[in-house]
Amino acid sequence: MKKITQILFLFSLLSFTTYAAVNDFCVADLKGPDTPSGYQCKPPNTVTADDFVFSGLVAGNTTNTFNAALTSAFVTDFPGLNGLGVSAARLDIAKGGSIPMHTHPGATELLILAEGQITAGFMTPFHLYSKTLKPGDVMVFPQGQLHFQVNSGNDKATAYLAFSSANPGAQLLDLLLFGTSLPSDVIAQTTFLDVEQVNKLKARFGGIGIADS
Amino acid sequence: MKKITQILFLFSLLSFTTYAAVNDFCVADLKGPDTPSGYQCKPPNTVTADDFVFSGLVAGNTTNTFNAALTSAFVTDFPGLNGLGVSAARLDIAKGGSIPMHTHPGATELLILAEGQITAGFMTPFHLYSKTLKPGDVMVFPQGQLHFQVNSGNDKATAYLAFSSANPGAQLLDLLLFGTSLPSDVIAQTTFLDVEQVNKLKARFGGIGIADS
Amino acid sequence: MKKITQILFLFSLLSFTTYAAVNDFCVADLKGPDTPSGYQCKPPNTVTADDFVFSGLVAGNTTNTFNAALTSAFVTDFPGLNGLGVSAARLDIAKGGSIPMHTHPGATELLILAEGQITAGFMTPFHLYSKTLKPGDVMVFPQGQLHFQVNSGNDKATAYLAFSSANPGAQLLDLLLFGTSLPSDVIAQTTFLDVEQVNKLKARFGGIGIADS
Amino acid sequence: MKKITQILFLFSLLSFTTYAAVNDFCVADLKGPDTPSGYQCKPPNTVTADDFVFSGLVAGNTTNTFNAALTSAFVTDFPGLNGLGVSAARLDIAKGGSIPMHTHPGATELLILAEGQITAGFMTPFHLYSKTLKPGDVMVFPQGQLHFQVNSGNDKATAYLAFSSANPGAQLLDLLLFGTSLPSDVIAQTTFLDVEQVNKLKARFGGIGIADS
Amino acid sequence: MKKITQILFLFSLLSFTTYAAVNDFCVADLKGPDTPSGYQCKPPNTVTADDFVFSGLVAGNTTNTFNAALTSAFVTDFPGLNGLGVSAARLDIAKGGSIPMHTHPGATELLILAEGQITAGFMTPFHLYSKTLKPGDVMVFPQGQLHFQVNSGNDKATAYLAFSSANPGAQLLDLLLFGTSLPSDVIAQTTFLDVEQVNKLKARFGGIGIADS
Amino acid sequence: MKKITQILFLFSLLSFTTYAAVNDFCVADLKGPDTPSGYQCKPPNTVTADDFVFSGLVAGNTTNTFNAALTSAFVTDFPGLNGLGVSAARLDIAKGGSIPMHTHPGATELLILAEGQITAGFMTPFHLYSKTLKPGDVMVFPQGQLHFQVNSGNDKATAYLAFSSANPGAQLLDLLLFGTSLPSDVIAQTTFLDVEQVNKLKARFGGIGIADS
Repeated sequence: MKKITQILFLFSLLSFTTYAAVNDFCVADLKGPDTPSGYQCKPPNTVTADDFVFSGLVAGNTTNTFNAALTSAFVTDFPGLNGLGVSAARLDIAKGGSIPMHTHPGATELLILAEGQITAGFMTPFHLYSKTLKPGDVMVFPQGQLHFQVNSGNDKATAYLAFSSANPGAQLLDLLLFGTSLPSDVIAQTTFLDVEQVNKLKARFGGIGIADS
Repeated sequence: MKKITQILFLFSLLSFTTYAAVNDFCVADLKGPDTPSGYQCKPPNTVTADDFVFSGLVAGNTTNTFNAALTSAFVTDFPGLNGLGVSAARLDIAKGGSIPMHTHPGATELLILAEGQITAGFMTPFHLYSKTLKPGDVMVFPQGQLHFQVNSGNDKATAYLAFSSANPGAQLLDLLLFGTSLPSDVIAQTTFLDVEQVNKLKARFGGIGIADS
Repeated sequence: MKKITQILFLFSLLSFTTYAAVNDFCVADLKGPDTPSGYQCKPPNTVTADDFVFSGLVAGNTTNTFNAALTSAFVTDFPGLNGLGVSAARLDIAKGGSIPMHTHPGATELLILAEGQITAGFMTPFHLYSKTLKPGDVMVFPQGQLHFQVNSGNDKATAYLAFSSANPGAQLLDLLLFGTSLPSDVIAQTTFLDVEQVNKLKARFGGIGIADS
Repeated sequence: MKKITQILFLFSLLSFTTYAAVNDFCVADLKGPDTPSGYQCKPPNTVTADDFVFSGLVAGNTTNTFNAALTSAFVTDFPGLNGLGVSAARLDIAKGGSIPMHTHPGATELLILAEGQITAGFMTPFHLYSKTLKPGDVMVFPQGQLHFQVNSGNDKATAYLAFSSANPGAQLLDLLLFGTSLPSDVIAQTTFLDVEQVNKLKARFGGIGIADS
Repeated sequence: MKKITQILFLFSLLSFTTYAAVNDFCVADLKGPDTPSGYQCKPPNTVTADDFVFSGLVAGNTTNTFNAALTSAFVTDFPGLNGLGVSAARLDIAKGGSIPMHTHPGATELLILAEGQITAGFMTPFHLYSKTLKPGDVMVFPQGQLHFQVNSGNDKATAYLAFSSANPGAQLLDLLLFGTSLPSDVIAQTTFLDVEQVNKLKARFGGIGIADS
Repeated sequence: MKKITQILFLFSLLSFTTYAAVNDFCVADLKGPDTPSGYQCKPPNTVTADDFVFSGLVAGNTTNTFNAALTSAFVTDFPGLNGLGVSAARLDIAKGGSIPMHTHPGATELLILAEGQITAGFMTPFHLYSKTLKPGDVMVFPQGQLHFQVNSGNDKATAYLAFSSANPGAQLLDLLLFGTSLPSDVIAQTTFLDVEQVNKLKARFGGIGIADS
């Protein structure tokens, strides 16, 4: 009895502590609209420990074109990350597989190699920054840079990825160049690829291109 | 048929790519509320190329008190700028005209002179940073500084402006000092202007002053 | 008559000035949802001078366990602070009282001593940064650091606090360690406190511990 | 003996704790160059508690033109504020005095009235946000807005100011308009003031105008 | 004489105004080191109006492979932009020319078409956002997105570009893919291009590839 | 020969590409001073792929007081992270071990459990957010929150950590409370711990306390 009174007393004296939950985190309400700084916050009194845990950053199925799988824990998967400027993913690449050239327009990527061997790199004009990584190596791909990861070993490779954004995006170069309705001659003019090459890859990647104009 | 299957297959493998549109841009829903980081985003699936293009950054009508016109492409004109930290405007000043002293409280301004001659400058206490510009000159006015632009040539002048904010604001000094209900004696006391001068300019700028208190 | 016409004329020429209120401030609509950058803005045309003034940063009642009181002017008390990155509080400590160890996870604190004598400090591993302050002294507690304030004089002490966030939070260490449902043995294991000590303080602070899981 | 060994042992195991001082604060080396994010940091091992305390935020001498004094605790006065986004000042205004119209181009200002009566306000185009404040009132002046403070009571007034920047700047409008070498006719053209008024105030404020061009 | 005294008096009372130049801008000392927030600042007392003006944003020579020229006013060209988050460029494209596919990893681009006709666009996976622009149109290319500009008219085209960074970078896709020492088979594996196509373009762009490892 | 000429030609036309390396990354010069935004950048022409790779994020030695080891890849270990807002660490906890209560004042932490079982949590006043994690689970600890990790399984546990800062710091609560020269009675007063308990833990953690004042 005395304890309850004391606690209520504490509350009245230190009522400012009740605001702590408001600003110390902002779990995304994914049903609401997004803003430039992230999603609206769930009401603090509905937040539970489950909002801060994501389950399922496990090996993806690599029996596909790339012999690779990326499993993401971005804010759209894991609302607790909202506004906190960090997210994660898991990369599994079967022998001979690769993650093709891609960018994250709004995030730096950190790759922690857990198992196997990966050759990875990014490029700036006329410069290649590439290394063959072994377990325990960490490589950083600065924000917005075009980069790739190839399994260059004899077994499968597993890596954990961290990003400097809760929603880093991921843009595969082939889907940008060959997955839309951009006419082949414009692609050829602005990439110096031969039109035949462009058409061949449009056939592979471009069938659902949507012209937004 | 095979292509469709393959693409769906890609989708299941690379479903993370579908989030790209969520975070790579945030086109403003101007009917919704604003936030400190900008407006809420339109649903990504309703965004089209038109959201990223603004038409009408053309010469304004300069037959007015200032012999000048400013045409803006701010986020409230051009929702695609939301959250991107940049906006634009066009400045046309007839011979003898000027853009009076003003500030942008939340943005740096960059002026690119396309045609004519402008003398522009900004001030810090006891220091003037002023130059007469010719076409091809670019001048920067750091965030929040009081600045002015005068057509100092013999023909009309045209400039393009860029701002370091999607919504830079623009506050003409005369509208701040003489366009509100602030009593003339308080203005005089806090500016050292003579009351007669204050009253004269209040008559010119202050008729619709609204006392918010 | 002429004035009205002129003003309307100004409006059409300088209609950009009407946007000023949109971005120059963003008074919180506390009934709406929060976002990572702060609350949604009230419609600019409903904003008045009262939104920019908070009344009541006066001496709190110090007849309590701590012999101290903290009165806050955070965004949840004072909506005009929304998005502006600053807030305030007033600290009153009776003779012999103290503000116990606490952190502000998202803000730096500045303490301005107005009256009396306070001994204050913060710690990093193995380092103590502590001073006894007299009126006119200002002390800074960098973001997220554990810190304390003790009235070390013979009279009451009064200080004004400023924070580098509109919503700095305030986490009393005892409420974190002894105010939740975290089992005593886990607390003991992760703090090296004796279980008896933990139980004693849980009895004092922990009665309403809520297990969120 | 055992303790020393244990501590060294802790050091080797938890050597990461030794970096704490590097990033938890960055006390300015004011003799070194400034950068856009603030001054270079002093070596962490030379930092003491004194770096986090500023002494002298006391009443200034108000026997001057303005009957007012501003005492600042900005980063250039108080190196411990470097990079922390907050600073402070003290305002003393004698009866009849005022702080004239001014802006802080890079900071929001919070005014806490401790003693006396101040009428303060800021303006956006056509709007005045003004209030008469009593002790315990707090008023916020959003970043970059033109504002003023007048002692409207019968006694001296004292206020504490907080800013959302370690180096907020302070630009008195009269020093911008009348304290530089900007020619009187250009001032008149871009402010609509009469040339006689401009000349009168240039004589008062402009004697040391320096033309930087 | 009286004036000098008065001004010195002002200085002693308002000495805070002398700091204004420190923080209101930070002109780059390009001979010093860069930091993540930009270059070190030149000493404020060496800054002149010339530091805030760049001359030469004029038509470049378009008689080259691309029939296009980009003239930049980035911080490395124009030190006054340091820390201000904005820069500019001019684009001239002869009939039939284009700016090939490229990204700015750290900046949003705004294109203001001044003369001629340009078809421009950017892509996200499976989506094209493209338009044909006429003079007075403004198009925004969000940060880090792959984009292109083609002169689709019958005359030369001129555009002004603004960026949301003082140092936006510019990475031509062909120089990333075909201008380094990345082996052709790795390029082929990570782009799905044919090795013959890769070799053909490496011959065109890759002769000075430097392997940084 | 023709190729070389062509490349030089490209260089003169597209000389802007040479700036790319300046701003796309900023590898730390750890011998130079730190700034609030990070270390000074190494000259871009001395940067190699090795700057972007850290080797040694392997299992640490857990035969110590905590039965746990934290191996860090922070900017002071890995200069390529400078300015990029992300870092990593590896956590190994033997059976029965734990990482005691600690905070990262300037970073959110993401924990990816790779092997074993960990019970982890963080607290806000009166609220516990705690879960028992299995491999593939990811938990987020928002910036500045007090948190802990306990091996609650029957085998060793391994986790990878990502942080939203290149230099997150790490402050063990016991080293803050009991590792400095703060007098035991002040600790007792500001934590409500018994003096005997404080003395006991000071003996364990406090031998090298340094009074910085």
